[in-house]
Amino acid sequence: MATPSSSSADNIIDGKVIAETIRGEIKEECAALLQSSGVTPGLAVVLVGNRTDSATYVRMKIKACEEVGIHSFKFDFPSDVTEADLIAKVAELNADPAVHGILVQLPLPGHIHEQKVLDTILPDKDVDGLHPLNLAQLAHTNTHGSSRKFDLKTLPYHAACTPQGCIELIERSGTVIEGKEAVVIGRSNIVGIPVFLLLMQKNATVTVIHSRTKDASAVCKRADIVVAAVGRAEMVKPDWIKPGAVVIDVGINSVDDPTSKKGYRLVGDVDFAGCKAVAGKITPVPGGVGPMTIAMLLRNTLQGAKRGLSGGNGN
Amino acid sequence: MATPSSSSADNIIDGKVIAETIRGEIKEECAALLQSSGVTPGLAVVLVGNRTDSATYVRMKIKACEEVGIHSFKFDFPSDVTEADLIAKVAELNADPAVHGILVQLPLPGHIHEQKVLDTILPDKDVDGLHPLNLAQLAHTNTHGSSRKFDLKTLPYHAACTPQGCIELIERSGTVIEGKEAVVIGRSNIVGIPVFLLLMQKNATVTVIHSRTKDASAVCKRADIVVAAVGRAEMVKPDWIKPGAVVIDVGINSVDDPTSKKGYRLVGDVDFAGCKAVAGKITPVPGGVGPMTIAMLLRNTLQGAKRGLSGGNGN
Ligand SMILES: NC(=O)C1=CN([C@@H]2O[C@H](COP(=O)(O)OP(=O)(O)OC[C@H]3O[C@@H](n4cnc5c(N)ncnc54)[C@H](OP(=O)(O)O)[C@@H]3O)[C@@H](O)[C@H]2O)C=CC1
Ligand SMILES: NC(=O)C1=CN([C@@H]2O[C@H](COP(=O)(O)OP(=O)(O)OC[C@H]3O[C@@H](n4cnc5c(N)ncnc54)[C@H](OP(=O)(O)O)[C@@H]3O)[C@@H](O)[C@H]2O)C=CC1
Repeated sequence: MATPSSSSADNIIDGKVIAETIRGEIKEECAALLQSSGVTPGLAVVLVGNRTDSATYVRMKIKACEEVGIHSFKFDFPSDVTEADLIAKVAELNADPAVHGILVQLPLPGHIHEQKVLDTILPDKDVDGLHPLNLAQLAHTNTHGSSRKFDLKTLPYHAACTPQGCIELIERSGTVIEGKEAVVIGRSNIVGIPVFLLLMQKNATVTVIHSRTKDASAVCKRADIVVAAVGRAEMVKPDWIKPGAVVIDVGINSVDDPTSKKGYRLVGDVDFAGCKAVAGKITPVPGGVGPMTIAMLLRNTLQGAKRGLSGGNGN
Repeated sequence: MATPSSSSADNIIDGKVIAETIRGEIKEECAALLQSSGVTPGLAVVLVGNRTDSATYVRMKIKACEEVGIHSFKFDFPSDVTEADLIAKVAELNADPAVHGILVQLPLPGHIHEQKVLDTILPDKDVDGLHPLNLAQLAHTNTHGSSRKFDLKTLPYHAACTPQGCIELIERSGTVIEGKEAVVIGRSNIVGIPVFLLLMQKNATVTVIHSRTKDASAVCKRADIVVAAVGRAEMVKPDWIKPGAVVIDVGINSVDDPTSKKGYRLVGDVDFAGCKAVAGKITPVPGGVGPMTIAMLLRNTLQGAKRGLSGGNGN
């Protein structure tokens, strides 16, 4: 853990390299688990309809499972599947002991109540970590004072993948979170708030910035660690960054680019070129947070299998 | 709402007066509800054993119900009641349409798994607001940007009473939360975190301080609004407070006092005498946050009855 993995040539935190390292660790742990207990972690992936992007994501996840030694079970449904049928499938997977993680690829067709389907997934099989209980636990792991010990691997439920990925990038680039000032820009329940809670559990002093924050740049400039999850192309400018700060860019925004074949390119919420000159370390987009998400999905599935062996989380 | 209720003579926010005002509003609303729909809100209070302090709290709550026109149902159990019997009672109350709120007075005897009993209470009848889902909703009511509207009265579940009380004290003393810098000292899932989430939903820019924060006084001094929920007698000193800031003191600490009849007196987490000279407004201990907790319990019960009429929260 926490060995510096950023390229030594510059100050870029390479998400691809770190995700690769983590997938290697997971592969070893899966092999050890199989050896010691005969158990192979299993991930069920539910895909509805024929969106090309969803099919691509599902394929990537299944391929990643294969590479590390996690069983994957794929369930395809036509786009006119009923909500009841989908929920019945989730319930069946909830009860299946070979399945440690359940992932329903979003978005679902309009006639299906997405949250209703997601809420059916048992929190301890919700490897995406999107169930409200998965979020609530991040505020509940309070152990107080000097005995405080927070370990992502021993939470009762799964923490959401992208926020976990942010924490891993910070720690594996050699940054100690405890005692630092951190700022999270964005307060969605998918990214901003879980990142806030994770940084706080890691004993940073954290401030959350949002669209109603006055003088966001001045607040941001106090931070030793900045996590931007806004959805606004290159909003965070060099003068928002305290010299030497660690900058994690969650944003994925597409901007017009006539020089590119596709006519657009992807940028983050941070003005990368400008901020790179001020930051101590910084993640690029793409190649920063993005690759971490699948790695965390695999790790959650592995942890789910391990928890199953140790008697679950008491629910 | 939000009419100044602090004493005009000085800068003290009088929790007793504000709580009294709120109880008056609840009384009117209960009368209107009865008139319009024939419904009287109902609170079930479960008391186990014969602790004097618990019996006193329960008596206060029941008396407060009577005063505003809320039915109360009291259930006494001997201290050797089984966990199964308690859970069966809670399940019965969950199913009872005359009961809109269920309160299990803590602490429970050692042989009973407290969290197990509390988790049995349906989140929409959990008027104490301690169920993890009640906390999680505070991170989930994200409505984004200019359309953002957050109303404590229309949340799907109940927000915890003491944190709600803090927000009411701030707003009813005439302070607009939106756009302010706020600091919460303490990060418990009972007080600190829900206060953080509520202030954030009200569009403050919020920082959470805890025992691992470096230079807490400097961080605190940035704040226009300070909420202290630490449990350390008079820890927050005048030089922690930005001149003019609003200071809400949740702490209840007993300190030796040979001059008092009991040999001790209650003080907050804030050095009241010192900070009063710097703060714009400040709550005393006792008589600040304390009286608000029961008022918020009554309001949650009333809201529960109203939600029941409008078809519940969709669960
Ligand atoms: N790499 C990955 O794997 C993932 C990347 N993402 C990307 O992360 C970004 C954020 O995603 P998500 O959290 O879902 O987005 P949301 O749209 O749900 O939330 C955006 C947040 O940014 C805040 N915000 C908007 N404008 C400003 C501003 N001018 N100043 C300060 N704050 C502002 C909003 O504030 P308010 O609440 O006041 O409206 C809101 O809290 C997106 O670009 C998304 O594509 C998301 C998930 C995974
Ligand atoms: N008026 C009312 O109705 C109520 C009053 N209270 C009172 O509020 C207070 C807080 O209660 P509760 O939240 O349950 O308490 P907890 O003990 O659960 O939490 C206290 C918090 O304060 C933090 N803390 C401790 N020491 C310091 C320090 N030196 N500097 C900064 N932060 C510190 C702790 O940090 P860490 O996490 O790092 O240990 C912890 O997060 C108590 O006095 C309690 O009696 C509580 C509920 C209702």
